[in-house]
Amino acid sequence: MDLVTLDDISGAAARIAADIVRTPLLAADWGDPRCPLWLKAETLQPIGAFKIRGAFNALGRLDTHTRARGVVAYSSGNHAQAVAYAAAAYGVPAHIVMPEETPAVKVEATRRRGAHVVLCGAGERERTAAELVEKTGAVLIPPFDHPDIIAGQGTIGIEIAEDLPELATVLIPVSGGGLASGIGTAIRALRPKAKIFAVEPELAADTAESLALGSIVEWPVAKRNRTIADGLRSTPSELTFAHLRQVIDDVITVSEDEIRSAVRELALRARLVAEPSGAVSLAGYRKAALPDGSAVAIVSGGNIEPAQLAAILAGG
Amino acid sequence: MDLVTLDDISGAAARIAADIVRTPLLAADWGDPRCPLWLKAETLQPIGAFKIRGAFNALGRLDTHTRARGVVAYSSGNHAQAVAYAAAAYGVPAHIVMPEETPAVKVEATRRRGAHVVLCGAGERERTAAELVEKTGAVLIPPFDHPDIIAGQGTIGIEIAEDLPELATVLIPVSGGGLASGIGTAIRALRPKAKIFAVEPELAADTAESLALGSIVEWPVAKRNRTIADGLRSTPSELTFAHLRQVIDDVITVSEDEIRSAVRELALRARLVAEPSGAVSLAGYRKAALPDGSAVAIVSGGNIEPAQLAAILAGG
Repeated sequence: MDLVTLDDISGAAARIAADIVRTPLLAADWGDPRCPLWLKAETLQPIGAFKIRGAFNALGRLDTHTRARGVVAYSSGNHAQAVAYAAAAYGVPAHIVMPEETPAVKVEATRRRGAHVVLCGAGERERTAAELVEKTGAVLIPPFDHPDIIAGQGTIGIEIAEDLPELATVLIPVSGGGLASGIGTAIRALRPKAKIFAVEPELAADTAESLALGSIVEWPVAKRNRTIADGLRSTPSELTFAHLRQVIDDVITVSEDEIRSAVRELALRARLVAEPSGAVSLAGYRKAALPDGSAVAIVSGGNIEPAQLAAILAGG
Repeated sequence: MDLVTLDDISGAAARIAADIVRTPLLAADWGDPRCPLWLKAETLQPIGAFKIRGAFNALGRLDTHTRARGVVAYSSGNHAQAVAYAAAAYGVPAHIVMPEETPAVKVEATRRRGAHVVLCGAGERERTAAELVEKTGAVLIPPFDHPDIIAGQGTIGIEIAEDLPELATVLIPVSGGGLASGIGTAIRALRPKAKIFAVEPELAADTAESLALGSIVEWPVAKRNRTIADGLRSTPSELTFAHLRQVIDDVITVSEDEIRSAVRELALRARLVAEPSGAVSLAGYRKAALPDGSAVAIVSGGNIEPAQLAAILAGG
């Protein structure tokens, strides 16, 4: 299986530079002095999450003729927003397949970006998307299982290596594994001595189990869905798992309370609104024994319901 | 009276570059399309507010011998944190005078930065600070009434002009006037056609009244203290007022509800935690008729009590 290379990621960085925010790496002077903490604030991207990097890279890699037919994505989360945003920027149609139970506010947000939303029943997402591809000739943009997506997310790793030459540790949320595969590949190439940790919720710790076992273990959806980190309920694909085995030193698993504390800490100490999935990296920083030296936590996204954020702030 | 010049501000920018975050100018694609909205996120500074710029410039301007005697500030807010932070970076003592009623959490935060906190009775701040200067030989760093502070805050204006050549409008919170004087001076010099608006709460609209009248009108403290924007309860000095008269095109006043809505909007749409004082610029953007073209709102600070933020999020 061909893995994504640093060259692929460098190409992606050049391709998407004009469309994304080169997010700041913020010094968090309230971390552990032994492992100075830095936050990579992907919450500051236009749609509030790193997913925009992969989406712009995947669309940018299509030839003009193919791209003009439009793109299809199935997602009710940040990937939907990212594909809709990138398609609007390129002026091509986007068809977004969402489950019928998607909150109306998310459906409306996607439509406001100019996307065509197709609602479908539970378990019908992939079939509905395939039908749309068949009918319209549009191209499917998967959320993580594609080299162009992995390379796009990996651009974060290049930025970190540029901004923090003394990097000792990087902590990356893991779910489908596109983000961890991409950043891990870039950091492994540019800062070979740095430790690369994936972080996931204890309640959806399929990647930790899979890496320990050396092969993908599927957890039942209902089991993964228990975590409040709703962006971390996917399982790696063969492609991302092959990357993770190469680049991840260890997986840190964190509890729901630790995730809530991290959301709270980011709001009050770093003044960043993070969603639970985006805050697990800080929870991992707080929990694990890390090597001495500078640690970067990827704050991957900030799309949280107001009531949930209010409850977390009030609860601590 | 000598006013601060663009040269002073350029000098400040070079002096503080290594100590501050060059904050991103974030495109907010959910603004009014006629006036595309950009957010200057000073909430991402180490202490969560722009005040760090003026503090580093003022300390940097002292000669080594003088600076070694230490610095004094009277503040219970962001200026206290900024002076304590900058003094620690320079390795010199900081004496921070705070009113006895300052919440313990703020006193502790200041002590954690290595500062010596001196509590005093109501109305005793300036006398206590003067006594400390007398006793220790330390230098008083005022919150806004000093050219070095104005020049330091003005560095934000240089960054905006660099990042957004097509700037049409800038919206700046105003209170003591150091921020608006500095940014206004830089923008007037670098983008002479841009409109410069100061924004303040209706409940502390002394600057609007003063500029309309052409001389400083003092509002009683109890009247100014009604606003939730606790960083906007000061009145310009002769020095800042002279700048404001030169550089401010108009003052927009906003209601308490409009301020709360802006805090909420920043958290949910821009994923930025802003304090009420830091959000008035967005409230002004939402309220006033602005000229066509790109508008920058200065999100000046993000230090808000968790309970207040939770209430604002839950309330909307």
